[in-house]
Amino acid sequence: MGHIGAPVPWILLQYLISVEVLTGFGCIFHAYGLYLFMDYIYYIRKLPVLSYLQEYDEILVKRIQQLRNIRHRPDQFTVLVREIPLCVEHKSHSCCVDQFFSKHHPCTYQSYKMLYDGKDLEYLLNQATSIARKIEKLREKSLIKKHNRESSLLDAFQEDAAIVSLHEDKLQNICQKIRYIQCENRLKQKELPVSFVAFKSRWGAALAAQSQQHSNPLLWITEMAPEPRDVIWKNLVIPCRYMPLYKIGVFLTASLLTIFFAIPVTAVQGIAKFEKLRKWFPPAMAVQLIPGLRSIVTGYLPSVILHGFIYIVPFAMLAMAELAGCISRSKGEIKACNMVFYFLVGNVFFLSLVSGSLLDEIGEYFTHPGNFPSHLASAVTAQADFFMTYILTDGLSGFSLEILQPGLLFWDFIKSQTFSRGKKKSPYLYSLPYFRVIPFVSLSILIGMVYAVVAPLLLPFLIGYFFLGYVVYINQIQNVYEIVYETCGQYWPYIHHYIIVGIILMQITMIGLFGLKSKPAASISTIPLLLLTIIFNEYCKIRFLPTFCHYPIQNAVENDELDEKNGLLAVNCENAINAYCPPCLQPVNFMAQESSSTQPLVSST
Amino acid sequence: MGHIGAPVPWILLQYLISVEVLTGFGCIFHAYGLYLFMDYIYYIRKLPVLSYLQEYDEILVKRIQQLRNIRHRPDQFTVLVREIPLCVEHKSHSCCVDQFFSKHHPCTYQSYKMLYDGKDLEYLLNQATSIARKIEKLREKSLIKKHNRESSLLDAFQEDAAIVSLHEDKLQNICQKIRYIQCENRLKQKELPVSFVAFKSRWGAALAAQSQQHSNPLLWITEMAPEPRDVIWKNLVIPCRYMPLYKIGVFLTASLLTIFFAIPVTAVQGIAKFEKLRKWFPPAMAVQLIPGLRSIVTGYLPSVILHGFIYIVPFAMLAMAELAGCISRSKGEIKACNMVFYFLVGNVFFLSLVSGSLLDEIGEYFTHPGNFPSHLASAVTAQADFFMTYILTDGLSGFSLEILQPGLLFWDFIKSQTFSRGKKKSPYLYSLPYFRVIPFVSLSILIGMVYAVVAPLLLPFLIGYFFLGYVVYINQIQNVYEIVYETCGQYWPYIHHYIIVGIILMQITMIGLFGLKSKPAASISTIPLLLLTIIFNEYCKIRFLPTFCHYPIQNAVENDELDEKNGLLAVNCENAINAYCPPCLQPVNFMAQESSSTQPLVSST
Repeated sequence: MGHIGAPVPWILLQYLISVEVLTGFGCIFHAYGLYLFMDYIYYIRKLPVLSYLQEYDEILVKRIQQLRNIRHRPDQFTVLVREIPLCVEHKSHSCCVDQFFSKHHPCTYQSYKMLYDGKDLEYLLNQATSIARKIEKLREKSLIKKHNRESSLLDAFQEDAAIVSLHEDKLQNICQKIRYIQCENRLKQKELPVSFVAFKSRWGAALAAQSQQHSNPLLWITEMAPEPRDVIWKNLVIPCRYMPLYKIGVFLTASLLTIFFAIPVTAVQGIAKFEKLRKWFPPAMAVQLIPGLRSIVTGYLPSVILHGFIYIVPFAMLAMAELAGCISRSKGEIKACNMVFYFLVGNVFFLSLVSGSLLDEIGEYFTHPGNFPSHLASAVTAQADFFMTYILTDGLSGFSLEILQPGLLFWDFIKSQTFSRGKKKSPYLYSLPYFRVIPFVSLSILIGMVYAVVAPLLLPFLIGYFFLGYVVYINQIQNVYEIVYETCGQYWPYIHHYIIVGIILMQITMIGLFGLKSKPAASISTIPLLLLTIIFNEYCKIRFLPTFCHYPIQNAVENDELDEKNGLLAVNCENAINAYCPPCLQPVNFMAQESSSTQPLVSST
Repeated sequence: MGHIGAPVPWILLQYLISVEVLTGFGCIFHAYGLYLFMDYIYYIRKLPVLSYLQEYDEILVKRIQQLRNIRHRPDQFTVLVREIPLCVEHKSHSCCVDQFFSKHHPCTYQSYKMLYDGKDLEYLLNQATSIARKIEKLREKSLIKKHNRESSLLDAFQEDAAIVSLHEDKLQNICQKIRYIQCENRLKQKELPVSFVAFKSRWGAALAAQSQQHSNPLLWITEMAPEPRDVIWKNLVIPCRYMPLYKIGVFLTASLLTIFFAIPVTAVQGIAKFEKLRKWFPPAMAVQLIPGLRSIVTGYLPSVILHGFIYIVPFAMLAMAELAGCISRSKGEIKACNMVFYFLVGNVFFLSLVSGSLLDEIGEYFTHPGNFPSHLASAVTAQADFFMTYILTDGLSGFSLEILQPGLLFWDFIKSQTFSRGKKKSPYLYSLPYFRVIPFVSLSILIGMVYAVVAPLLLPFLIGYFFLGYVVYINQIQNVYEIVYETCGQYWPYIHHYIIVGIILMQITMIGLFGLKSKPAASISTIPLLLLTIIFNEYCKIRFLPTFCHYPIQNAVENDELDEKNGLLAVNCENAINAYCPPCLQPVNFMAQESSSTQPLVSST
């Protein structure tokens, strides 16, 4: 995302200004009547829709430019192949790969890299790392002792040296074992039916990724490889045929979490009342000593609990998305982003509108689907003030939290105090948590959409919110977060989808609202508008979505030609296959004196 | 279809025996109780599902074999390209095609054939044909006169000759015009943005058809070309971007026809009562003269009217499918087949179950979706006898009608007596009307599925029906109908879908039935079964459907290799591009004396 991630808040802002202000204020001036509708349709259909299509197109152009800019990247030459059948003769998958691709893609196939089940290796590597750390500690200790010239403790010193050499022997032993396992013959037994196949050109890779290789489409499944730094290696172990089960499981869990989320929260809120707390946790009495603190605690505790729960949800969703077997971090975060958005729509937007649990609402909706618009409209009009406060408080507090990063500070503090105590601080920088940021911003858009007509006074606040958001996120992206993967704008189709969900909800609210105001003609004439929105969404899907999923042949050839001109095609292609090396197969190098033997005995192809 | 078309009734029969008899009779023996359910699940899930998967797999294998058997066919080498952009420099599409494909598919691209708007040419060709027919008639007349030696009428004879020569001049004139238009320069002005592109190998064609060519997926749309004899040339004129509108239009029309079909039928039935007929159409009185005929007319007239309407529907649907812009007859017939099936499910199955119109039912379903299963179950149990009669009478009368072909005879009679009077009888043989046959057979399967548990006595009749159907259709396919296109089994996924619809309806009926019998546990435990059926369907879609849509690379390479062994690859490839010649561009040849100039002046590439 990175370079393309930046303009997203800006586009949202621009889009919001164009759609919401125009339609919102347009609607106030021509209040209630069919003229409003013509006007409304005109604004919605003509100006913003055209500018919106242009927006989508611009992002597409940026994606293609970005693909050209990062054309040296190995994933453009590489295809991930899964469900490789076993060669009966040699009892291995690897000879199958070579045979298959040199036969079916003879002009472009270059080489392949098998993947191996690295559980044992990872275990040994962890062991080796911990021993190496121990040795280092002991050395440091003895150095300190030496420095203090406690020569009287020569025995202790010798004892230390003996322990160190013992550990060193152990480490060398383990390193030998690792190198032994890393050699090709041993690895072959742990072969997975997964391989990265490199091609001589982007053209070949794009063609292979987009075509069906075998008459059984569940064999030789090809797709464009993710970036090497983006791959989740451990998820590649999961056989493709179990993936649907994983996905269904995660979908069910996420749905249950969304539907039943209110129940544990209200339960905890019920328990955590100050009166009860005082009984169960006597130190809480101390709060009473500071005057005024008690009323703050009593007032804000339920809200703090709710927000605490909501803060945790994105991380839970991310963990679930990774459990679902996503092969790359980017795909996992996109999945999490999706789940979090629907969670927020259910548990922030709808639950604020209705009294009672989401389950009751869904049941009500299924038994009387016809009542939904009027129900929604009356609830929406009643809660306008609440959402204005929501945008003001939660939106603004969200930005300050984003800048101060209290969550990460707190987490780092806990980590350094507990299980990582004494370990080296990892220099790892976090990436922008799209799965947390995008759903919240999208929810604000949705609220803005729905209230654009009902309570247009919300819009100035929302515009303020977006301006601030733009400034905050530009700063965060440029100065705080590290880019750990680049999807070239693959988040955009999802954001587009959220905007469409917002527009559809607005139009349903309008239908209900005109029904409530006893204007059946107006109500009925909004229905075609709803259908037009859905058709518009379908058009966008047909027109733009494929290019976000595939690498078009034309662009592949263009980039190949650019490389050929600079004479870089062979170099890039060579780099491609070497870039995909799972962490457990990287050469071990724990001690300086071992430098001569850090290479695996035989390197795997 | 052809070779593969034959086994379909047999497979249906086999499947019906395995699923229905086993589950149906299994259910009678262990009536009512959860044990039945375990048993039922066992039978449904284990035996028939496995055999059913095997069935699907067998059809897939047959499709691949058939693709190998007919590997000489030109469509395996050819890709249909639509929405070719205009070359600004040369103001034509054709130079774009050559440039694009020789750049983006350099190893495999061979040549291309542009399509042209042939309306003018067709008009001229029709004129030419009618004049040629006139000349022939005049010649015959004068020959007869000569034969009768009416030498006294020398003047008349000369007059005839003068008219003939006048017509011949006219014909020659038109032929000149046609050849002038057929020459390349004139055609270029009527270029369509559509082209058939031939590749040097099946491999190249398969890759090009399956990949996205341009970053705008609505340009350079590629798909495997249909067979030359299967192409509907006039539909290729429709720009791709209007196709969704056509499709939506046809979908709406078909839905309206399905929903409101009952209204005109009941109206006609109301008008066509014998008492009213007597008043309006006095000759009907003659019926009264023959004793007993009156009661037959009064009794059967409404049913005859209904069946007449239902008999016309498939043809109306076919016409609509062709209007929807299908590029090949096979696709049009598949579309029509689909629409007819849903029409029959609505207007034969559901309308027989309920009193009142389908519209009321759909409204009822939307307002109270929860009541649907119990509603269906009570209606189904009440109408068991009706459907037994339906299978016996309509099924058997359907076969006799199929063998006797009264519709075609009647149509031919009308044609020869009215607008084609005196024209040569066309030797055209009809193809098996899949769009009429498959929906009726599928409806019988659906009825059998639903009644397998409710009224298993229906099953023996149904088995009789399928045995008879097998014999009848094997005979019809082998001896009566001509194969006018070959889809290699592309009808099968649709038949599979109809069977799944039947199973789902059966399971919903079961849920309702157990609800009616006050067995909530049994009712609830059927719901997972329903979900499993849906998951099974999804699995079949993932596992088998892609191979019915694409040409897998592996098979393409295999067939290429077979051809290379026989040295036929170049020949087949050469044939491929010449096979696609629209009827209006074929050389004109109306008279023997014109043989020297029948070739177009310049042949288009």
